Amino acid sequence: MSLIPKSHPRAKSLMIREKLVAGFEKGLVAKEGLLAQGRGEAFDYLIGEKTGKSAKLAIKVAAAQILLADSPVISVNGNIAALCPKEIVKLAKQTGSKIEVNLFYENEERKKAIVKILKNNGASEVLGTNPTLRVILSGIDSARRFVDKNGIFLADVVVVPLEDGDRTLALRKAGKTVITFDLNPLSRTAQTSNITIVDNVTRSIDLLTENCKKLSNKNKKTLKKIVEDFDNKKNLSNMINEIKNNLTRRSRIA
Amino acid sequence: MSLIPKSHPRAKSLMIREKLVAGFEKGLVAKEGLLAQGRGEAFDYLIGEKTGKSAKLAIKVAAAQILLADSPVISVNGNIAALCPKEIVKLAKQTGSKIEVNLFYENEERKKAIVKILKNNGASEVLGTNPTLRVILSGIDSARRFVDKNGIFLADVVVVPLEDGDRTLALRKAGKTVITFDLNPLSRTAQTSNITIVDNVTRSIDLLTENCKKLSNKNKKTLKKIVEDFDNKKNLSNMINEIKNNLTRRSRIA
Repeated sequence: MSLIPKSHPRAKSLMIREKLVAGFEKGLVAKEGLLAQGRGEAFDYLIGEKTGKSAKLAIKVAAAQILLADSPVISVNGNIAALCPKEIVKLAKQTGSKIEVNLFYENEERKKAIVKILKNNGASEVLGTNPTLRVILSGIDSARRFVDKNGIFLADVVVVPLEDGDRTLALRKAGKTVITFDLNPLSRTAQTSNITIVDNVTRSIDLLTENCKKLSNKNKKTLKKIVEDFDNKKNLSNMINEIKNNLTRRSRIA
Repeated sequence: MSLIPKSHPRAKSLMIREKLVAGFEKGLVAKEGLLAQGRGEAFDYLIGEKTGKSAKLAIKVAAAQILLADSPVISVNGNIAALCPKEIVKLAKQTGSKIEVNLFYENEERKKAIVKILKNNGASEVLGTNPTLRVILSGIDSARRFVDKNGIFLADVVVVPLEDGDRTLALRKAGKTVITFDLNPLSRTAQTSNITIVDNVTRSIDLLTENCKKLSNKNKKTLKKIVEDFDNKKNLSNMINEIKNNLTRRSRIA
């Protein structure tokens, strides 16, 4: 493969792209996952490639929600495993969350590669791999309907970075509270989740872990207030305004 | 690979994605090309997945410009070969344009696969493959600097669907008139080209061919007037407004 020319103004974005491509070579990422990353790149470009005010608020609320959970689970797919395995494990350890592998495109080999990289990055247990514990979450057509009896099936709060819309709705219908990272504030996932962090997960996952640490000494009442005061729809609407302002700003520079 | 569930609201987009993935399997598309397609998907979503007014105007002007050219060349990369080889050949035949393969990530095998699919779809000649005719276009770091002496190097008008920014600038500096399809109206390619069609190339390439056919009986003066009356920057600015309106509309529905 050719080197990325340093003079290329999208060099940084191309470097992250190469990371995904490397994850693809290692068998972590599906081909479709490369396309999904591309969509993310475009929306990240539109939000200005920075963690905005609305995202920061959502992160704080998400932290409070995770701390309030009895049985929080972080759902991991190939892209997230390729991009930030260490950070996912860190978040899980900070919050006592379980980690479960859950894929849109079912593939046992890929699942094994994902478990391996998570364990190499310090995960003690990764759910979603034991066929005897496999149960079906209704309302999903893709392989994502298969969940772990002791993981997502039992969870009250599910963190789903890089999600697809039909599962979010199914998780909500199953009574779960859903926290998601989604760069498109208009997507079904974004609109259906309880708490949507419109940001590049690679940029803000550590911020979520930090917020969890910072809020960990607060009492339940304080945490509940943070969650109750939050209006996800309104926050998403603010995010759409941020994008519109960015478009205006960029079109002036252009 | 799993089947795409028909119930998925992004099913159509996923089908196109599968087409790209198939092109990847056939060795036409680079891994990075899958990501580029993803970025396109996001911008297409934002323009409402339809050919808007500004795009239609740019298509008409592009047609006039191609008809005015002495030596028009269509530059083809892996993605465009995977998505619409037949349509590219049709446009070339309608307008007497040459076709040249030009890749960002140099790869002889991939080049051969692209030439093959173009020939299978009726192309009589595909430039950009003969090493003795290879010359360098200055100002480009990627493999895209290599162009054909009888093709892009000689051309007065170059049609570059799915382009990267540094080449557009280099082509402009070399005195070429550049027509591009780019779904991001803010990109360097979009902003640097003479005529930018902000649309999904798979949706509007046939429209460009039809416009070329329709305008082919017009005299030079009429065609020149169409080109001279066009303001690319203004058209792009209208396009950005279309996106902003779409965001407003979609956020109301959400």
